[in-house]
Amino acid sequence: MTTVPEKDRLHAQITFAVEIDKLKRIIRRNLLMDGSRRENDAEHSWYVSMLAMVFAEHAPPGTDIQRVVAMLMVHDLVEIDAGDTFVHDAVAVAAQAEAERAAADRIFALLPADQAAGLRQLWEEFEARETPEARFARALDRFAPLLANHNTQGGTWPLFKVTADQVMRNVRLIEEGSPSLGAYAIDLVRRSVSMGYLPE
Amino acid sequence: MTTVPEKDRLHAQITFAVEIDKLKRIIRRNLLMDGSRRENDAEHSWYVSMLAMVFAEHAPPGTDIQRVVAMLMVHDLVEIDAGDTFVHDAVAVAAQAEAERAAADRIFALLPADQAAGLRQLWEEFEARETPEARFARALDRFAPLLANHNTQGGTWPLFKVTADQVMRNVRLIEEGSPSLGAYAIDLVRRSVSMGYLPE
Repeated sequence: MTTVPEKDRLHAQITFAVEIDKLKRIIRRNLLMDGSRRENDAEHSWYVSMLAMVFAEHAPPGTDIQRVVAMLMVHDLVEIDAGDTFVHDAVAVAAQAEAERAAADRIFALLPADQAAGLRQLWEEFEARETPEARFARALDRFAPLLANHNTQGGTWPLFKVTADQVMRNVRLIEEGSPSLGAYAIDLVRRSVSMGYLPE
Repeated sequence: MTTVPEKDRLHAQITFAVEIDKLKRIIRRNLLMDGSRRENDAEHSWYVSMLAMVFAEHAPPGTDIQRVVAMLMVHDLVEIDAGDTFVHDAVAVAAQAEAERAAADRIFALLPADQAAGLRQLWEEFEARETPEARFARALDRFAPLLANHNTQGGTWPLFKVTADQVMRNVRLIEEGSPSLGAYAIDLVRRSVSMGYLPE
């Protein structure tokens, strides 16, 4: 436990609360399901956390869904400093790791040390993809933009010249976390190709 | 348990997932903390769920924080149909109850029956404010816009002609859920008045 006095703890928590409001201004690549605008990281974080509750039965038996929810709530906080990276841009993805680590060092440290360690651990677990919880969380993080692109006649796929092969590589991450959602995702990609939303 | 076949369950869950994307387009009264635009319900739902994790120690001992998080994730879904109601508009708040009930009937029912019942129960509990979890969730739901308005030199308070008396009435809901956050909120209101953000 920490030795910080109560008042300082609350002050640190308020500072963190004000800081993370910035996640609402980090813009992602995919559109909302009505195609009206691009999604931001905060509403994306809510959405995938909801998907964890809704699709809980598609996680491997014994998966701690409440931990998945907590992980998805914090998984993009580092993007406040590091920005969103396009999953299909391999060079950017590689360069991103260092920037995200520096962001984690700064942002989580705004909290009292015990809380900072807890949230950072959630983020590290998400990134490492070694636990069923992290793999299911990652699956949902990939499933959501696929669903959005499919529901907006391809959404931003044509804009960023994304191919079916690239999307299928991402579907592997969905399968790893949830075989049944993975199977559904493969079907979505095939339907997207056959409807002309996604070039083969 | 339900007797709906697996494939129909997944189909119902996907339908619900597509439907709740609409929460990203329900606009609230308060601004983001940088004053750039108004907040939407989806990013607000993420934000207050994060606050539940960050301020967990300010809930009464024994409060089930994971239930608070789940409650805050679903608490505004009914606004997809019923829209956002301004807390300081008493007439609108009274008329809203019926519209929200009808919205709950429609939206939760998109899910398989067992899941619909579970999410609806979370929403009913939030609305009833009888459990420590619901009272803490409501406290955070009121605390977040207060923090946003204070951090944006009054934000939308002048636009909607809100007075310190009105805000203080809302602070009572914060105190009910969390005495320490309530005390901090009273201090925030006083500072807002002394800085000229809020007329007495």
